[in-house]
Amino acid sequence: MSEFIVKFVSFGKTVSVPAGTDLITAAIRCGIVLSSACGGEGVCGKCRVIVKKGDVKAEPSRFISPADRKKGMVLACQTLVEGDLEVTIPKGSLDSHESMSHASEEFTKGVILARESLFRFSPLVRKACINVPRATADDSTGDLDRICDALKPKIDNLHLSTRLANVKHLSEVLRESDYRITVTLAYKDGNLEMLAFEPGDTTKANYGFAFDIGTTTIAGQLIDLNTKEILGTRISFNRQSTYGSDVITRIIYASEPPGLETLNAAVLDNINEIIMDLSAKSGVSLGDIYAIVCAGNMTMMHLLLKIDPSSIRKAPYVPTTSVFPSVHPPEIRVEINAKGIVSFLPGVSTYIGGDIVSGILACGLSEEEDLSLLVDIGTNGEIVLGNRDWMMGAAASAGPAFEGSGLSCGMKAVNGAIQKVSIGADLNVAYSTIGGDKPRGICGSGYIDLLCQMLKHGIIAKDGKINASAKSGRIQKAGAVREFVIASKKETATGHAIVINEDDIENLKRSKGAIYSAIFALLNKVDKRVQEIKKIYIAGGFGNYLNIENAIFIGLLPDIDRGLYEFIGNSSLAGARMSLLSHEAFAKTDEIYKKITYLDLSSEPNYMDEYIASLFFPHTDIGRFPSVRL
Amino acid sequence: MSEFIVKFVSFGKTVSVPAGTDLITAAIRCGIVLSSACGGEGVCGKCRVIVKKGDVKAEPSRFISPADRKKGMVLACQTLVEGDLEVTIPKGSLDSHESMSHASEEFTKGVILARESLFRFSPLVRKACINVPRATADDSTGDLDRICDALKPKIDNLHLSTRLANVKHLSEVLRESDYRITVTLAYKDGNLEMLAFEPGDTTKANYGFAFDIGTTTIAGQLIDLNTKEILGTRISFNRQSTYGSDVITRIIYASEPPGLETLNAAVLDNINEIIMDLSAKSGVSLGDIYAIVCAGNMTMMHLLLKIDPSSIRKAPYVPTTSVFPSVHPPEIRVEINAKGIVSFLPGVSTYIGGDIVSGILACGLSEEEDLSLLVDIGTNGEIVLGNRDWMMGAAASAGPAFEGSGLSCGMKAVNGAIQKVSIGADLNVAYSTIGGDKPRGICGSGYIDLLCQMLKHGIIAKDGKINASAKSGRIQKAGAVREFVIASKKETATGHAIVINEDDIENLKRSKGAIYSAIFALLNKVDKRVQEIKKIYIAGGFGNYLNIENAIFIGLLPDIDRGLYEFIGNSSLAGARMSLLSHEAFAKTDEIYKKITYLDLSSEPNYMDEYIASLFFPHTDIGRFPSVRL
Repeated sequence: MSEFIVKFVSFGKTVSVPAGTDLITAAIRCGIVLSSACGGEGVCGKCRVIVKKGDVKAEPSRFISPADRKKGMVLACQTLVEGDLEVTIPKGSLDSHESMSHASEEFTKGVILARESLFRFSPLVRKACINVPRATADDSTGDLDRICDALKPKIDNLHLSTRLANVKHLSEVLRESDYRITVTLAYKDGNLEMLAFEPGDTTKANYGFAFDIGTTTIAGQLIDLNTKEILGTRISFNRQSTYGSDVITRIIYASEPPGLETLNAAVLDNINEIIMDLSAKSGVSLGDIYAIVCAGNMTMMHLLLKIDPSSIRKAPYVPTTSVFPSVHPPEIRVEINAKGIVSFLPGVSTYIGGDIVSGILACGLSEEEDLSLLVDIGTNGEIVLGNRDWMMGAAASAGPAFEGSGLSCGMKAVNGAIQKVSIGADLNVAYSTIGGDKPRGICGSGYIDLLCQMLKHGIIAKDGKINASAKSGRIQKAGAVREFVIASKKETATGHAIVINEDDIENLKRSKGAIYSAIFALLNKVDKRVQEIKKIYIAGGFGNYLNIENAIFIGLLPDIDRGLYEFIGNSSLAGARMSLLSHEAFAKTDEIYKKITYLDLSSEPNYMDEYIASLFFPHTDIGRFPSVRL
Repeated sequence: MSEFIVKFVSFGKTVSVPAGTDLITAAIRCGIVLSSACGGEGVCGKCRVIVKKGDVKAEPSRFISPADRKKGMVLACQTLVEGDLEVTIPKGSLDSHESMSHASEEFTKGVILARESLFRFSPLVRKACINVPRATADDSTGDLDRICDALKPKIDNLHLSTRLANVKHLSEVLRESDYRITVTLAYKDGNLEMLAFEPGDTTKANYGFAFDIGTTTIAGQLIDLNTKEILGTRISFNRQSTYGSDVITRIIYASEPPGLETLNAAVLDNINEIIMDLSAKSGVSLGDIYAIVCAGNMTMMHLLLKIDPSSIRKAPYVPTTSVFPSVHPPEIRVEINAKGIVSFLPGVSTYIGGDIVSGILACGLSEEEDLSLLVDIGTNGEIVLGNRDWMMGAAASAGPAFEGSGLSCGMKAVNGAIQKVSIGADLNVAYSTIGGDKPRGICGSGYIDLLCQMLKHGIIAKDGKINASAKSGRIQKAGAVREFVIASKKETATGHAIVINEDDIENLKRSKGAIYSAIFALLNKVDKRVQEIKKIYIAGGFGNYLNIENAIFIGLLPDIDRGLYEFIGNSSLAGARMSLLSHEAFAKTDEIYKKITYLDLSSEPNYMDEYIASLFFPHTDIGRFPSVRL
């Protein structure tokens, strides 16, 4: 079959592909990730590109006007290469992961900090420098045997093992280093595995990564395993998003070869890019990174480990496994020291993954006597209610609105995101952005502020519709819906106005309703009242800021004593970090996942009524929000 | 560089090699293993071939007469290819591994049988067929989690683990098999590893191999892990012998790349050939073989696992490791089920390897209250003295004479070997061969009988010299030495007479002296007398027959109560088999190797005197052999 050259002009990148390749694939081969929410089905209209030169076979699309079509605009996913091409990509068609490299440092305060200091410092991987006693005629046991003997005082009677590959040149290492070596040790299944033998004393250089693998974002953190110091945090857009914004679309995509391979390669690109970037910035050599701990939802874990995820979307919705074997980096193509170890936090079931188990570890809910609640607002909303004796978890179909996805001006909590908003009596708007940059969009915490302020000032009604009679030049019509302007195009980094429209509000309302009603479904199931809850941990990728008061005002969270709330940020990442820094913390995840019962909301008789009732700001039953005055 | 074609005429095999390749290497490329004891140094004269046609560059050799040279005879190791060749190989230049396929069944009687039945039957790898409970909306834990739950009643609370590769398509296996699967389980580091998940009930097919990896011979045994039945035993010549007959020559050969790779490939060819052969004969599919247990001396283990062995021959003679990690078959290129496990018995030091630890397990010396002795006569002679409280081991430089190596008509204990000999008053000779075939040579037990009978009938004197005045037509002169004819060329399978000459006798005398004096050095070290020994186990590749009385008569073994002796055959193979059939037996090897102290004979002040005194038949001090009348 003939090959053609595709040139992506503005990137200066060129790739040779077989005739018939679609342009989204050609772009990915060059490392260019186009926006896409539908998995290449041609129904989201996000992957628009312009073919400047050359022959293609393009399906017509309702997303492209006849005028644009004349200019050469096509949907990349619906366009096949039939000759040498020159292609340009409009800015709006690019995923924003490029701009996420300057993520704010991860949240480490309050309960997270307290928990962190609670666990004995015993990192998953540690190094021990030893002087190996030389063999004599009287003591002629093997080199490895003498190394194990020398390690004995340092390892609490644990069983030591190693892999054959590490042994092959051990005698050389020992002799060349004059019998002074550093052994890298990893906790594994209650024993210690000797991962590597390095000449001399290399104990000073021991680093690891904690990762939260989310459906929409991947967060990674480089940690010094000697000092516990966080050397850097980076968040990037999950590159799998090109093949579908939600897990179901991705599982479907994975079912046709080479879909699983493609999705797997995409997330590994994310991970490796974060590893490269943070290591380079901290001057850490990749060879000194021996450990990674990952937390993520079930589907993400299956895709990361290239485990067939198809059973997840077939009743009764069962993962292949909820506990994942540790691997050595090359087994999954992660680019740290090849002798290292990559471990994964266990999950409960399809809907309560390792990210939630990690969050429970991070906040300590499973060790408290009092009833507590964890609400993790990510691409879905997961909720766990319980205490040290029992836990019950549920997943609300909240969608990724609070992560900034699916909204006209939504974005992640990264630099340039509007994170705080207040509206004055004159209906003018003040806002602040993460990093103080010119605004590029609105993140979750910004939307919560915005909804609250719009409600308070009568810009929107309880049903979320924009009040046409409100006196503000910021209210304008856009097609069939109204929108409210937060920042004019002159103020923004993009040159486009930043707005919230009625579709966005509807979307956010359904998200907040799903979470609120799930909390009550759980309480009902165990016959508890919201007043019995002594602590509510709110987790999610909101950045360092979330106004709990405003979240209650819009009906996202129950109207109880604000002092019971604690915002804990990305608790999945925090739990992964704790597990990396203390194998005792890691061991606790085993107890946690076994203790959580999963509640299937769709089979709960009253859940749907509860949900419908929550589709108002703050709620149909205003009696539930005594502190809210509208 | 130009390539030439070498044709090995009688084999009908052809190979293309670069100019300058030596003929021993060219032959190996065709799968033809030439005899060689010196590692290709041109000093043993064994690898004679005849170049019928074509150009070579051959070093002259004292092993080849001018007449033979005229016929085209050369040493293959000293001859380089310089053109297309036709080569023939005299029968005497071929290693005898081809003829070893009909090895006698391995020894299973007496103490071996008793020990075998002592250990609880719990094979290293076992299979369990389970019906996996189907997931429901209420029980939606992962497939693997439900498999582990279903296994719980069968696994004594052991921790279960598996490798990522096994999980990837697990959900498919489960659904296609209608939730009835067979899990293959292996004991590993005190836990259980799930090696494989097969659809349906495959428990009936579960096989393993026990191997003894010796310097000169490799013995393998196929075992049904459901019934304990030995389905077949095969012994073959270690193909590494082409590169040197002793471990030191091989370690030197391994030190120059690609020497280690070459030796490693050679022993793996042996192992894989035995696996193929025995499986095919028993109708066992390779995919149903999940387990191998290997015992072998230190150098053989290093070469098998491609561990740099160079430290073994440098003072203080230390192996890289004496405990070897279990591996999966592809890691070392062993051709059983790729998901299986290959385990190795631990050794003590360079000179007391896993073969001896295996022998101790097999005979039970380490569990007896009384003082016992194990004498293993192989390529070297290893001796262990002790009881359940302590053990001390030594290695005698006995050489491989009793394995039939280095003697003019020596051979392994395989079909065609003269294993029993008696000489009448008329000095005529009666003998029997293994398998009843026409004789092809003499094995260890045959030589012991022969020396004893020759001594008794005055054919040889106490110093081993053949008595020229003995009246027998069987005594003849061959060059500078005399020889005694056991079988005329008419009687033999080879058409050559089978003889023993004075060089052979000298060789055997040094071997027996080394072993006898090592036994006394050990006794002296711990201040014990030979009369305190309550049991002597004699192990070695003598076949099923060894005349202890005769062995005492020639001074190989101490002259004590014959009832204390027990011949236990290849105890290394027996111990490997026991470890394969009972993981509790396997676990005992860990206690055994830790309990053995190694005694370095070369640094024992009186050892050399003891050795010199033993270089007579039976001994310089005849008072030590009160029952021997000469």
